[in-house]
Amino acid sequence: MVYVTRRATFSSSHILCNPELSDEENVALFDKCANKMGHGHNYVLEVTVAGEPGEKTGYVIDLKRLKQIVAREVLEKVDHKHLNYEVDFLSGVIPTAENIAKGIWHVLEPKIKEGKLYSIRLHETENNIVEYRGES
Amino acid sequence: MVYVTRRATFSSSHILCNPELSDEENVALFDKCANKMGHGHNYVLEVTVAGEPGEKTGYVIDLKRLKQIVAREVLEKVDHKHLNYEVDFLSGVIPTAENIAKGIWHVLEPKIKEGKLYSIRLHETENNIVEYRGES
Amino acid sequence: MVYVTRRATFSSSHILCNPELSDEENVALFDKCANKMGHGHNYVLEVTVAGEPGEKTGYVIDLKRLKQIVAREVLEKVDHKHLNYEVDFLSGVIPTAENIAKGIWHVLEPKIKEGKLYSIRLHETENNIVEYRGES
Amino acid sequence: MVYVTRRATFSSSHILCNPELSDEENVALFDKCANKMGHGHNYVLEVTVAGEPGEKTGYVIDLKRLKQIVAREVLEKVDHKHLNYEVDFLSGVIPTAENIAKGIWHVLEPKIKEGKLYSIRLHETENNIVEYRGES
Amino acid sequence: MVYVTRRATFSSSHILCNPELSDEENVALFDKCANKMGHGHNYVLEVTVAGEPGEKTGYVIDLKRLKQIVAREVLEKVDHKHLNYEVDFLSGVIPTAENIAKGIWHVLEPKIKEGKLYSIRLHETENNIVEYRGES
Amino acid sequence: MVYVTRRATFSSSHILCNPELSDEENVALFDKCANKMGHGHNYVLEVTVAGEPGEKTGYVIDLKRLKQIVAREVLEKVDHKHLNYEVDFLSGVIPTAENIAKGIWHVLEPKIKEGKLYSIRLHETENNIVEYRGES
Repeated sequence: MVYVTRRATFSSSHILCNPELSDEENVALFDKCANKMGHGHNYVLEVTVAGEPGEKTGYVIDLKRLKQIVAREVLEKVDHKHLNYEVDFLSGVIPTAENIAKGIWHVLEPKIKEGKLYSIRLHETENNIVEYRGES
Repeated sequence: MVYVTRRATFSSSHILCNPELSDEENVALFDKCANKMGHGHNYVLEVTVAGEPGEKTGYVIDLKRLKQIVAREVLEKVDHKHLNYEVDFLSGVIPTAENIAKGIWHVLEPKIKEGKLYSIRLHETENNIVEYRGES
Repeated sequence: MVYVTRRATFSSSHILCNPELSDEENVALFDKCANKMGHGHNYVLEVTVAGEPGEKTGYVIDLKRLKQIVAREVLEKVDHKHLNYEVDFLSGVIPTAENIAKGIWHVLEPKIKEGKLYSIRLHETENNIVEYRGES
Repeated sequence: MVYVTRRATFSSSHILCNPELSDEENVALFDKCANKMGHGHNYVLEVTVAGEPGEKTGYVIDLKRLKQIVAREVLEKVDHKHLNYEVDFLSGVIPTAENIAKGIWHVLEPKIKEGKLYSIRLHETENNIVEYRGES
Repeated sequence: MVYVTRRATFSSSHILCNPELSDEENVALFDKCANKMGHGHNYVLEVTVAGEPGEKTGYVIDLKRLKQIVAREVLEKVDHKHLNYEVDFLSGVIPTAENIAKGIWHVLEPKIKEGKLYSIRLHETENNIVEYRGES
Repeated sequence: MVYVTRRATFSSSHILCNPELSDEENVALFDKCANKMGHGHNYVLEVTVAGEPGEKTGYVIDLKRLKQIVAREVLEKVDHKHLNYEVDFLSGVIPTAENIAKGIWHVLEPKIKEGKLYSIRLHETENNIVEYRGES
């Protein structure tokens, strides 16, 4: 078994805010991340697929194909978008890095046909990183 | 003469849009950057000051003091903010990386009392970088 | 389950030396790291906490709070300090990267109340990295 | 148990091509990577060894010794070489990142006497990364 | 005046060898870089253009357009290619980083119509970097 | 004219302290950097040499030779050393990044015979960087 990772980046804006709470409660919870005008990040996404390299190709999954899947299923939906209002797979959740990573997992997992999706790792800033491996 | 650089980061959202143009013209000029919901970046800022190291300190400027100046004059105004609507020194300009760098120059230049401000370098993404040195 | 990581840096000096050995034995074991005047590093620390994102917040643990815990419990004790002589949680051990990582684990583990500490990863240089996950 | 990682780099050229296939099939599978003139990469290699730090040294394995093992067993054989034609431990396999990582595992695993080899991680580009942990 | 930089990467192989010299002389000059099977690198290219931001756009040059120019004029010609045999603008020169940077300058300089090309910076490895600014 | 840069790293400890001042004055000036036990850094050094590439080699200066000069003249003297007590070319100066960079310039400048030394750039941490170009 080999783990192959494709790295990609996207730039989005978001607000951290729970619509069921008051403004004061949101600021208490999310501090400056609750600013209603929004702020944004250059997210770095690492998609890891685990599997056996094929005998014919030496690939677990052709990383050019994985790149295309990530571009079509994720980047086109989130890059240069507002994560609170414009991304179907995040509707109804607070777009924390944790929830974005879980959302991306659920979008990509059924699309990976060679090997199996193993991990979604998302860097929100150079100091804040989350990872989801489909565990519950 | 020695050049000293302090690096800092901030996360903001913006829209690239010229309010004097039509929506169509803005999309033609700015493509997905014109998305009205906005998008955002983790900006990396490098502030360079040039001067002679002091005999007593060996410093051109104490980088802890430069860090404080950058935090107070720049980061507090732009971090977790919307650059089109919430930043006084960017009001009336399109917040391209070029204009943000020039705005930061004009904010910081009069505040640097040890050495002289030499350069503002701003990374909008890992692939897009601008630099302003006060030249016209 | 989601894994969230907070990255931080600190700058310290140390000597690699086993006080029960002779100088010759220490140099044989630790080479130039045994230099009695000491040397130092910019350590990069990655603290990973595992847990379920809260329904109300979408956070495993508020990374601003994790940042504060790391600053108070670790950085204040090690940054700009000599790891052989000034750090209580390293007293009596040789401050190799391995032992520093284990020491930080034991300091942080009881302080993490949301989620559970999963890993301490410590970069001593860009080429030397250690990780401790509480396993024995 | 602590995981210690040594990072190293090497620069090699390769061609992705299955000699049992026609040129057309190779281009269909490997696209521009099948270019017969070859192309190359700066590979970044991360070798991770797991074990208990020794009481006398505080080391799982002396990273200077691990550095020497990696240099002698791997770097001397692959750095500034053509991976299809000049590397004994890759003869007969397509030198995809997956197969290079597995080859390096099999070369290094018997040479690690302190601790046990845990992982070979290989970055082919900044966006393409593979990892092998000896699992089948 | 603002300096804007677009970063891009490509992967190529090359041999350092002066065809007018003997094999022995080439090995004496270029050491393992003279290996006739070739080796390769992930080059990192930084293209810097200097100019005044336009009033209508706030751009010195639209970085999406600069990206396209770099892709079409440079990346398509060098990525996944052998620099000694397959690149028209390098024919007849030894493909050292110095000569590649100068070659890229001469290809790009006439294509930049907004602002003026200011610098070509090329990272051959993380430790070896060259820059050409059109000076002679 | 081409600018070629060799990057290297070293790990040292230092204290920021002016021996002509009182302890109180040193703490007021240098804060936690004045801690008498010392602290340390992984310094990143970038040495830039400017010149014309030779016709026979395509090199401004063979970077393998520049690497050797930097290793012999600088790294052997500062790596795993205490910069206040063990480095001849820093004796009598406060080892701020500014003064270390100037010291390295004066050590290397007479040793560079191909091309001319253009710049010494020194990263003390990922956020604090200085550069000296021999200007006074």
